[in-house]
Amino acid sequence: MAQRVTVYEVGPRDGLQNEARSLATDEKLALVQALADAGLRRIEATSFVSPAWIPQLADAAEVTSRLPRVPGLSYVVLVPNARGLERLVGALAKAGSGHPPVEAAVFLSASETHNRRNVNKSIDETFRALEDVIPPAIARGLPVRGYVSTVWGCPYEGRVDPGQAAAVVARLAATGVHQVSLGDTIGVGTPNQTRDLLRRLLATLPAEKLALHMHDTRGTALANVLVGLEEGVSTFDASIGGLGGCPYAPGAAGNLATEDLVYMLHGMGYETGVDWRKLVAAGALAERLVGRKLPGKALQAELGARAEA
Amino acid sequence: MAQRVTVYEVGPRDGLQNEARSLATDEKLALVQALADAGLRRIEATSFVSPAWIPQLADAAEVTSRLPRVPGLSYVVLVPNARGLERLVGALAKAGSGHPPVEAAVFLSASETHNRRNVNKSIDETFRALEDVIPPAIARGLPVRGYVSTVWGCPYEGRVDPGQAAAVVARLAATGVHQVSLGDTIGVGTPNQTRDLLRRLLATLPAEKLALHMHDTRGTALANVLVGLEEGVSTFDASIGGLGGCPYAPGAAGNLATEDLVYMLHGMGYETGVDWRKLVAAGALAERLVGRKLPGKALQAELGARAEA
Repeated sequence: MAQRVTVYEVGPRDGLQNEARSLATDEKLALVQALADAGLRRIEATSFVSPAWIPQLADAAEVTSRLPRVPGLSYVVLVPNARGLERLVGALAKAGSGHPPVEAAVFLSASETHNRRNVNKSIDETFRALEDVIPPAIARGLPVRGYVSTVWGCPYEGRVDPGQAAAVVARLAATGVHQVSLGDTIGVGTPNQTRDLLRRLLATLPAEKLALHMHDTRGTALANVLVGLEEGVSTFDASIGGLGGCPYAPGAAGNLATEDLVYMLHGMGYETGVDWRKLVAAGALAERLVGRKLPGKALQAELGARAEA
Repeated sequence: MAQRVTVYEVGPRDGLQNEARSLATDEKLALVQALADAGLRRIEATSFVSPAWIPQLADAAEVTSRLPRVPGLSYVVLVPNARGLERLVGALAKAGSGHPPVEAAVFLSASETHNRRNVNKSIDETFRALEDVIPPAIARGLPVRGYVSTVWGCPYEGRVDPGQAAAVVARLAATGVHQVSLGDTIGVGTPNQTRDLLRRLLATLPAEKLALHMHDTRGTALANVLVGLEEGVSTFDASIGGLGGCPYAPGAAGNLATEDLVYMLHGMGYETGVDWRKLVAAGALAERLVGRKLPGKALQAELGARAEA
């Protein structure tokens, strides 16, 4: 009996946010449609951050109001603060009652310096600010997902103490979010560290409450995913083609590529609901849209093998 | 107490053999020296194949006779047949009694079609031909290492039956070789498959007798290494910077990059004897020599982070 694993596709938001080329709204929606066609049922679509910060996502309201409705597919949209939540709620109201299911996502970092540079607040201040986001979102019927960045390491502080990281994750998990995604923002995590961290957390939290968001900056993403699977985690974030790169090391890989994740999961007998050929087609589309070769390895293997054939 | 893991560096032979640009002998020896400086103590240096087949390695005799002598460092040199062994013995004789320790390596494939295309013999015929290589090499004081290709999958036959692969590995292990390196030639292996294969083999063979030679064509190399470590394997092959690519899918990754392997091993507390900074320097040298950006992820992360700093 095959076990089910949920793949959270983060390419359209996390990926595109870090690409040099800004896509047109229609191009973003074409990518979302290709991902939906491939069978992905959790797609991070956009973010209601200030357009002054991230101009690539200035069309968040339009993207949200035009998201394709597909049975079983729900979207994730980032809301950094109360203002972002208002904008999301406004966009959903505009879309009318037929809009597809959307969950709001909130985020903070496990390290003080990264958190301050990212949201200009201490971790404590961020938790207080989230009191104006999470309960109101839930009150409006929006499930909330939490993201914690720099769980394994911080670009400014280096290694993050696992006790500190686990405390931030546990505190966020207690705010009403349905799941916390643990982010290896700079891709430094190794298997023993991942196992240690997960065991600390799983002592008090059910596995469904946790997701892993690994970066493949040093090639260790799937080894960490394997540890997650062994420890009972069944939700993993990934980005089509590895879209996004690593903002802290130009030319290096960032997000784990969805194709690599799905290749390994299918090879291990897990069910993901994803159609392999359509997933590769979505990766090829992502390459065409951003105009560069993407780092996803299984994608390149498929495209290279076809070129050879 | 940290456990020791042996890294077999295969860049100068396996890597360079598959690069479009042929290096000068001095360049190859500079790369070998950089790898030795980084603390690697098993380096696959060249191959006595026919120069008509692989012109990149036509200087095998000169490379062999000029290999730097470093305490604890022994080299691996491929000998496809009795003629190759003669050439190796000739080169060592020329180098004189001061030459560094060298082991001979023999190879075949787990799948009939790949074996026939590679050495123009059936698997059975290859085993018979190896009777003219392995015992004579051992008689001359050369330890012999065995390589089995296409253990997880074959570019011509697809998935290789694990019973068939294990039988070829076990048969080679019984010929007098000190170790058999299991090659995932097209990078298709996933963790459950690797665990199943290793458990079949470890039922009759000691773990020291096996090495894993994973390719990272679909990003799964380190996940498979992790399974190897869990099952007791402590020797892994890798290529500096991921040198070599995948001959079966242009643009895709081939050999696991040594930097990625060492990054994960050190992160898990294993001792390798490798100096991280000098390893990255060797990777940067390999990039300069072949004139292209190499796929090794940790290498790119290091070089990118320096460019950013």
